Amino acid sequence: MDSLSCAASDLLPLLGNSPNATAAADFICNRFTEVSTKLSHATYAIDNTYLLFSAYLVFAMQLGFAMLCAGSVRAKNTMNIMLTNVLDAAAGGLSYYLFGFAFAFGAPSNGFIGRHFFGLKEFPSPSFDYSFFLYQWAFAIAAAGITSGSIAERTQFVAYLIYSSFLTGFVYPVVSHWFWSGDGWASAAKFDNDLLFGSGVIDFAGSGVVHMVGGIAGLWGALIEGPRIGRFDTSGRSVVLRGHSASLVVLGSFLLWFGWYGFNPGSFLTILKSYGTKGDYYGQWSAVGRTAVTTTLAGSTAALTTLFGKRLLVGHWNVTDVCNGLLGGFAAITSGCSVVEPWAAIICGFIAAWILIGFNKLAEKLKYDDPLEAAQLHGGCGAWGVLFTGLFAKQAYVNEVYPGRPDRPYGLFMGGGGKLLGAQIIQILVIIGWVTATMAPLFYALHKLNLLRISSEDEMAGMDFTRHGGFAYIYHDEDENSNLPQFKMTRIEPTNTLTPDRESNTAV
Amino acid sequence: MDSLSCAASDLLPLLGNSPNATAAADFICNRFTEVSTKLSHATYAIDNTYLLFSAYLVFAMQLGFAMLCAGSVRAKNTMNIMLTNVLDAAAGGLSYYLFGFAFAFGAPSNGFIGRHFFGLKEFPSPSFDYSFFLYQWAFAIAAAGITSGSIAERTQFVAYLIYSSFLTGFVYPVVSHWFWSGDGWASAAKFDNDLLFGSGVIDFAGSGVVHMVGGIAGLWGALIEGPRIGRFDTSGRSVVLRGHSASLVVLGSFLLWFGWYGFNPGSFLTILKSYGTKGDYYGQWSAVGRTAVTTTLAGSTAALTTLFGKRLLVGHWNVTDVCNGLLGGFAAITSGCSVVEPWAAIICGFIAAWILIGFNKLAEKLKYDDPLEAAQLHGGCGAWGVLFTGLFAKQAYVNEVYPGRPDRPYGLFMGGGGKLLGAQIIQILVIIGWVTATMAPLFYALHKLNLLRISSEDEMAGMDFTRHGGFAYIYHDEDENSNLPQFKMTRIEPTNTLTPDRESNTAV
Amino acid sequence: MDSLSCAASDLLPLLGNSPNATAAADFICNRFTEVSTKLSHATYAIDNTYLLFSAYLVFAMQLGFAMLCAGSVRAKNTMNIMLTNVLDAAAGGLSYYLFGFAFAFGAPSNGFIGRHFFGLKEFPSPSFDYSFFLYQWAFAIAAAGITSGSIAERTQFVAYLIYSSFLTGFVYPVVSHWFWSGDGWASAAKFDNDLLFGSGVIDFAGSGVVHMVGGIAGLWGALIEGPRIGRFDTSGRSVVLRGHSASLVVLGSFLLWFGWYGFNPGSFLTILKSYGTKGDYYGQWSAVGRTAVTTTLAGSTAALTTLFGKRLLVGHWNVTDVCNGLLGGFAAITSGCSVVEPWAAIICGFIAAWILIGFNKLAEKLKYDDPLEAAQLHGGCGAWGVLFTGLFAKQAYVNEVYPGRPDRPYGLFMGGGGKLLGAQIIQILVIIGWVTATMAPLFYALHKLNLLRISSEDEMAGMDFTRHGGFAYIYHDEDENSNLPQFKMTRIEPTNTLTPDRESNTAV
Repeated sequence: MDSLSCAASDLLPLLGNSPNATAAADFICNRFTEVSTKLSHATYAIDNTYLLFSAYLVFAMQLGFAMLCAGSVRAKNTMNIMLTNVLDAAAGGLSYYLFGFAFAFGAPSNGFIGRHFFGLKEFPSPSFDYSFFLYQWAFAIAAAGITSGSIAERTQFVAYLIYSSFLTGFVYPVVSHWFWSGDGWASAAKFDNDLLFGSGVIDFAGSGVVHMVGGIAGLWGALIEGPRIGRFDTSGRSVVLRGHSASLVVLGSFLLWFGWYGFNPGSFLTILKSYGTKGDYYGQWSAVGRTAVTTTLAGSTAALTTLFGKRLLVGHWNVTDVCNGLLGGFAAITSGCSVVEPWAAIICGFIAAWILIGFNKLAEKLKYDDPLEAAQLHGGCGAWGVLFTGLFAKQAYVNEVYPGRPDRPYGLFMGGGGKLLGAQIIQILVIIGWVTATMAPLFYALHKLNLLRISSEDEMAGMDFTRHGGFAYIYHDEDENSNLPQFKMTRIEPTNTLTPDRESNTAV
Repeated sequence: MDSLSCAASDLLPLLGNSPNATAAADFICNRFTEVSTKLSHATYAIDNTYLLFSAYLVFAMQLGFAMLCAGSVRAKNTMNIMLTNVLDAAAGGLSYYLFGFAFAFGAPSNGFIGRHFFGLKEFPSPSFDYSFFLYQWAFAIAAAGITSGSIAERTQFVAYLIYSSFLTGFVYPVVSHWFWSGDGWASAAKFDNDLLFGSGVIDFAGSGVVHMVGGIAGLWGALIEGPRIGRFDTSGRSVVLRGHSASLVVLGSFLLWFGWYGFNPGSFLTILKSYGTKGDYYGQWSAVGRTAVTTTLAGSTAALTTLFGKRLLVGHWNVTDVCNGLLGGFAAITSGCSVVEPWAAIICGFIAAWILIGFNKLAEKLKYDDPLEAAQLHGGCGAWGVLFTGLFAKQAYVNEVYPGRPDRPYGLFMGGGGKLLGAQIIQILVIIGWVTATMAPLFYALHKLNLLRISSEDEMAGMDFTRHGGFAYIYHDEDENSNLPQFKMTRIEPTNTLTPDRESNTAV
Repeated sequence: MDSLSCAASDLLPLLGNSPNATAAADFICNRFTEVSTKLSHATYAIDNTYLLFSAYLVFAMQLGFAMLCAGSVRAKNTMNIMLTNVLDAAAGGLSYYLFGFAFAFGAPSNGFIGRHFFGLKEFPSPSFDYSFFLYQWAFAIAAAGITSGSIAERTQFVAYLIYSSFLTGFVYPVVSHWFWSGDGWASAAKFDNDLLFGSGVIDFAGSGVVHMVGGIAGLWGALIEGPRIGRFDTSGRSVVLRGHSASLVVLGSFLLWFGWYGFNPGSFLTILKSYGTKGDYYGQWSAVGRTAVTTTLAGSTAALTTLFGKRLLVGHWNVTDVCNGLLGGFAAITSGCSVVEPWAAIICGFIAAWILIGFNKLAEKLKYDDPLEAAQLHGGCGAWGVLFTGLFAKQAYVNEVYPGRPDRPYGLFMGGGGKLLGAQIIQILVIIGWVTATMAPLFYALHKLNLLRISSEDEMAGMDFTRHGGFAYIYHDEDENSNLPQFKMTRIEPTNTLTPDRESNTAV
């Protein structure tokens, strides 16, 4: 708050240098200094409120993932997939506290990996407060959640525990260090001026850092263990193994939409910041709102495009497809949400929908089975989003969001040259390379050790029964036939006359 | 921030007019100006944070609607109704961006319809920021959601696409222009001083603008296509077609309650505003809190009234009825929530519950079928709420919330005369008239073109199967009978022995 | 804001005492006074925004409870338990408005019970605003929700109405008065300096005040009415009566996690407060973030501990057990969340998991049946949390959160002596005593009057059918067999050929 600094020694001569003037200068300057301090405190309070509630929204996405995943798998694997979602958050909490955050944001560090703040040592500091840790933790657990969708319904629980810790604790933090830490070699907000291609990568909220990482990891897992039994029939024809509850799918998708307002606009980390342009009313608070709008428009457009696209291709109006299209639009806009115009977000969403449809077709051709379409959606639409930013990032917004370098490149189609696009392409290649180099060997080793895939008996029976203590749902239990007059039950329980043998639910 | 303005030319003579004094005056005034600017920025950041998170809460209501609607229809139409809820948000996002917002708030304009800001052109401005657009979008999609409830389980999807675009893109924006835009002919905060009856309509968060519009539109749709097959038996007796999941109904109702804290208190749009009365501790932040309290009390009272009322009338304690009563209380208090005392909110909720019960009785008598009771609830309780404000609005609160006209009318029972009540009655009549004049012909035309109602075969089979790719739920699939020893399955799957023929879920 | 006060009479002599100087002093001081006022307004706006959105999060926990409870009971009692959760919120809204808040926080008062602010009279005041009422209401309804879990599936609805009103309206408010009101005899922030053991009880967000109260009340209810039919077989062996939906359990648990970020960090009530230590960047906003982190770590650790603990003990990976462990960790950290280091939170969660496992074993031994494990979880882990604070509270944090008494005791293991621990033990004993003295006689009286437990016929049939208008779920209804070709239906509805007799759902 330089412009508010008030040194009595500066004011003193102006007031006349008398002893009285000394006191007057002190009197006045002390008050300005106090105002400055109080404004600083208010700024911390406002920004922390903003960041904490954004973090809570991002956390709510984990609930969204859990419901989306649960609804998208068959009932017999519901408990399994939900357990992985709960554990993403819980195990991620511990590992990100112990070392994940340190790898990602520990500073000062080299460009490859951070090395401070293990166990939140030296917290808080002027640069890092607890709210930032919480926010980044909520991001870290999202990546693992994406991967668990790709390998759903056929993966051993112990394999999940291993890859998930590795991904959340090491693979993902390193990527986020590269692109988001001020020390990262490809960061667009690098502390020194040695930006990649003079630009750095603009992946504002993580189409690449989060979505591609989760999607590519899932791709390797799903490739290595192969499709679920019955997903492709003996003649090689694709067979849809429908999820067990469209209600859970819609619930999850809406919760993800809700949480995305923390994911994208929240990535500004602060809201009280003036840009010094256009007048007092314009500042980061406007950019935050604009980011919420671009996010909304990209998802909405992708959902509508999918609705009509699938209607043409398949012949019916499918709500789960629309939900996936919606999420594909969100995954795509996540990279550029803060630096593009609302109209560009519509283009982003429109193309994202077709990319998802295309990758799904391709997956079917290649007999690739991904129960949540996670690799296609987060990997494919995420990669499109990274490119999109290189094409449509607007100069004024880039300079506001990544300030201090007025001549930096911006979107190719906006007249900003190809350097940003080049950096974005590097990001895609590097993420594919890094995740492949780390996760593919891990999944392959698990596969070779017979730790990756469950037995076909278990797969047919469902993991909930064989590994998790029983089926997730019991709508009719043994009491119902007991000692009420039968006719009475019949009136409300159409199917219960069909349960002639008394079953026990106790053998859990 | 007038009182903080510091002109060096004013201060200069006071400090003695010497050259030193010039510098001193500049020194001091520059700092006060800087303080003023920083306070202004902080105000923008606080108010935008408040409005954005309120918008997110209102958006969460769309999820609430989706779950409430899903649970209230039969299982065979779940995907259909959920798809309409997803599309309300997505299609509404595009159409409200392109023209809906412009019709509603485009200024300067005439009293009937706005004509600026198409595609968010000229955004942001000192008067309008992106957060305001997002907030109003979340309101617009709520209206369409209400209507889709009334015509659930029997409406062609293409009819839904048509009426929904028309409602969100034109009918609703025009109504919101009339009552909420500073140019609107009936606004209580009109820019000029030509208020309707010297008062204008007080519909703070939209009992009329949102709930009545959605409810009346639904009424015409449901009237024109008639009741669902089986809703009234051959002898004309009413038959309850129960929704398929009370859990989804409760989930949806609680989510709506949660979101209503964005809907009502959020409608202040800002929170940092002093009222200059009662001392520093009192300001818009208190009025916001009071609005959350009146909302809570009206809903709570309506829920309790419904509980005991239905117990007396029907003989059991019904959770779905209690949920509807709760929502009726919310719909009613929405108009006056900011200008009435908490005790008045209790009266509001008590009467709302009986109004809902009464309208439901009436609907049954008239063989009107509304699967969500949407017309009765949002239309009936909404209209009561508009009247309630005319009766119980308190002078002090009205002057704080709609400032600048100290002698304006307020609630009849609070000694404020009948002018406000008159304006409120005009609102009810005008909304009924406008929505009828626009939506009834539309529904009638769709009906005549055979685009409104699905065939009776489709209705019996359920729309999910015939139009949306399959049934929403699959709790037991074909794998289960396959290669596990039968006795093993029996222990956890009481009904699976009853699925002798292997089914395929693939024919989607 | 003393340091900003600017008296013209103080500044005047410093500027030379001339008439011009008088005007100059006024000019300058008026502006500082105005700055001070505006900063004060901004502080109110920020703190109220923070508290209101925290209150909304706490309210969302009620939805979490509803889903958790619904999923944990058998399908036939779903509507019953959900109705109690809706009514906790609604009836609690009215009773807490009328007198509950007055008993809890009415000031000035004696140490036992408050006696002002009935019906929010004299609201708002410099000390109490509506947001505070809303926040405390959301807490009050949580306690009743806990209790309803313990006595689920066998309690008359009228008994619920009676005990719930008594608990929310009297028993709980009195306890919160003791520990949280400035007049309370055991408060750690008592207005006078007469602290219990020179320390007072530190129960920051209510491991004791909320969780133990709800848990102990549930314990007595469940003890007095005895276990559900079939919970222990004729030979006394424990029989698990599994809940009907693991998806609802996970949904509810995640929502509780989400809401706990309002419960624990929100309990600071304000966020803009400097601690005057460590530099400007450190203040209550950091402590709020740290509290969110301790909460996350305790829950995460408890979840992981339960996962591996139960794997060892039972042999499978159980998601509902993991959810309960998670919640046990949260219930435990709630007391000390603001005054312990993150590493200590890990210890808290680890032990909480084993306490829950232990109490569950004990309950089984004693043939105590608690469908939600509520007494074990909220009572047992809550009590551990109270002790934990007495062991691990850190001096610096205690002094920041409970300021003004630099020599106050803190955690025993942190070198702070045993006085705080002593106070914490007193809290445990007093809560057990008070809740037992009030709730046990009430439940016993209801029992003697045959108002507590439902008939065994009703219990076997399920309360939804006998008391609440029907079964909560209808997945297949009578239309489906009607006039579609049978083969068509078969393709999507595997079980519908098994419903040979047409049923009517109309007899509700």
